[in-house]
Amino acid sequence: MPQKVRIALDAMGGDVGASVVVPGAAISLKRHPDSEFLLFGDSKQIDEQLAKYPALKKASRVVHTDVTISMHDKPSQALRRGRKNSSMWLAIDAVKKGEADVAVSAGNTGALMAMARFHLHTMPGIDRPAIAGVWPTARGDSVVLDLGASIGGDAHHLVSLAVMGSAMASVLFGLKRPTVGLLNIGVEEVKGGEEIRKASEQLRAMNLPELDYIGFVEGDGIGAGAADVIVSEGFSGNIALKSAEGTARQMADFLRNAMASSWQSKIGYLFARSAFKALREKLDPNKSNGGMLLGLKGLVVKSHGGINAEGFAYAVDVGYEMVRCDLLTKISALVQAQIAQEVVS
Amino acid sequence: MPQKVRIALDAMGGDVGASVVVPGAAISLKRHPDSEFLLFGDSKQIDEQLAKYPALKKASRVVHTDVTISMHDKPSQALRRGRKNSSMWLAIDAVKKGEADVAVSAGNTGALMAMARFHLHTMPGIDRPAIAGVWPTARGDSVVLDLGASIGGDAHHLVSLAVMGSAMASVLFGLKRPTVGLLNIGVEEVKGGEEIRKASEQLRAMNLPELDYIGFVEGDGIGAGAADVIVSEGFSGNIALKSAEGTARQMADFLRNAMASSWQSKIGYLFARSAFKALREKLDPNKSNGGMLLGLKGLVVKSHGGINAEGFAYAVDVGYEMVRCDLLTKISALVQAQIAQEVVS
Repeated sequence: MPQKVRIALDAMGGDVGASVVVPGAAISLKRHPDSEFLLFGDSKQIDEQLAKYPALKKASRVVHTDVTISMHDKPSQALRRGRKNSSMWLAIDAVKKGEADVAVSAGNTGALMAMARFHLHTMPGIDRPAIAGVWPTARGDSVVLDLGASIGGDAHHLVSLAVMGSAMASVLFGLKRPTVGLLNIGVEEVKGGEEIRKASEQLRAMNLPELDYIGFVEGDGIGAGAADVIVSEGFSGNIALKSAEGTARQMADFLRNAMASSWQSKIGYLFARSAFKALREKLDPNKSNGGMLLGLKGLVVKSHGGINAEGFAYAVDVGYEMVRCDLLTKISALVQAQIAQEVVS
Repeated sequence: MPQKVRIALDAMGGDVGASVVVPGAAISLKRHPDSEFLLFGDSKQIDEQLAKYPALKKASRVVHTDVTISMHDKPSQALRRGRKNSSMWLAIDAVKKGEADVAVSAGNTGALMAMARFHLHTMPGIDRPAIAGVWPTARGDSVVLDLGASIGGDAHHLVSLAVMGSAMASVLFGLKRPTVGLLNIGVEEVKGGEEIRKASEQLRAMNLPELDYIGFVEGDGIGAGAADVIVSEGFSGNIALKSAEGTARQMADFLRNAMASSWQSKIGYLFARSAFKALREKLDPNKSNGGMLLGLKGLVVKSHGGINAEGFAYAVDVGYEMVRCDLLTKISALVQAQIAQEVVS
């Protein structure tokens, strides 16, 4: 076994803080006993929780800080107020200093993005970082990015997203040459803005050995599993994600009401309980939790803020796996290959 | 009873043409006996179908043309090849000449948009037309626009969309002052691109008596029914729509598989059949068919291309209702009020 995976946790992030972060870490530790943790935040609250999880306590070190970034702080406020001393900053700082392999936070997305970018810096060749998530589809899972780290972007940005997303899909799903599609409002070559059409031409021309560019994918192609990696600038990527989440919730509510509408349907529900349980598990947002911040000189995972311990554990799992697969080296190599190709062409 | 509603139909549009358009018109005529139809296309095919629907035949006039716009024609090709003589053009032309009150086509969206814009022109104050649809939400129905007529747009464009969408919601849902939200990647004032933030400020400052601007709405707010009208430029609007459609399809497939997975769940399905039927009807894409082209000096409805007769009938219904509510006059008045406000401010 290689050395342990060292995970830095922002113990105060999210809507609930230590009472979710610590039990979540405990769950993940059971699945990956070769993890160890650095916990940043209010040591009283953290220790109180750790007392309930002796195995985790043995694998953890607590670093106290009073300063917490709230879910409502603007990125600029967070940087001004929480630089150097907030639990979020300290978790990122541990990665920067090489004391941890990955940082995980359920805190404010904008603040996390701003701090991570400010402190870790972007990789050479990457202008702006991105958030990538795993999307459950009809064909298995796909990597979708950018889910809202930045708005807009030129063809170079979109090609970078394609390259980083493929690296993540190849290590996460064990694929040699993941298929990649660009999110667009039609599949014909003439659709979309100039930057998308240019990115499409470039991806085709580069014909990279690490990814198989398949062309444009429409919004309903994501859930259909049209490609292993779906690429979009962050505005539309975020709209696609939230719109899908909203529809899933709406359908689940409607189904629940329909099943409670008559005695026949209630009996039907009892018979089909295991089928409904499978459906619920499939759609459990906790299970697709954990957005990777890509394009930085260090690994950072963003967990949803309003999540339970099981959900936070999934985000920690994502961080663990990305360390074990050496995602950073892989992305870095691919980005360099992309740049070399762009210089040549 | 006022005079009849005169509906021009592109009988060759869509994947199937007259065999869906004619039976669809027959269904709509039953619901609105005060309609009459102008059918453009291959008279042999149309007459063959009309023979099956004597009531519709009595209320229809057929105008023959050999020229059909295919689903694959680019807008520029369609304009070059199909101007003056295609079934799609002739339906729009009937509106232009005042021989019909509304045109309905299941043909190629890009071609329809290009022809409608070229021939009918946009209203004064409107730069680009939009496609608006009715979205079934947890709270009832909402109007969502632009679903893909054009990409991007400045604050003025977004405010115009808000005004046109409110006019549609007020006549369609009988609301005095519909709530309006701008689609964004967060609800805080600092989120989104400059044009969205500026549009938000303008809508707040204008405080129009015809609409109640409530601020930003995220992707999952659409299905939650956060506002009666959801406004977005066409790229993100299209992505939101397709992403939601894809998720609904994915969940329906998964549910079907889950219900067939064991004898218990199959029995459960039998008991809960009526609940599932209600769910299926709720999610039937045929029932939310009919995108309004807004911002033109004439009414045009776009039906989905791959639809059945029942679905096409819904698109015809939408056209009928928009004529009866005098949508055009309402939108035109609201747009003028918007311009007056902008000039003053």
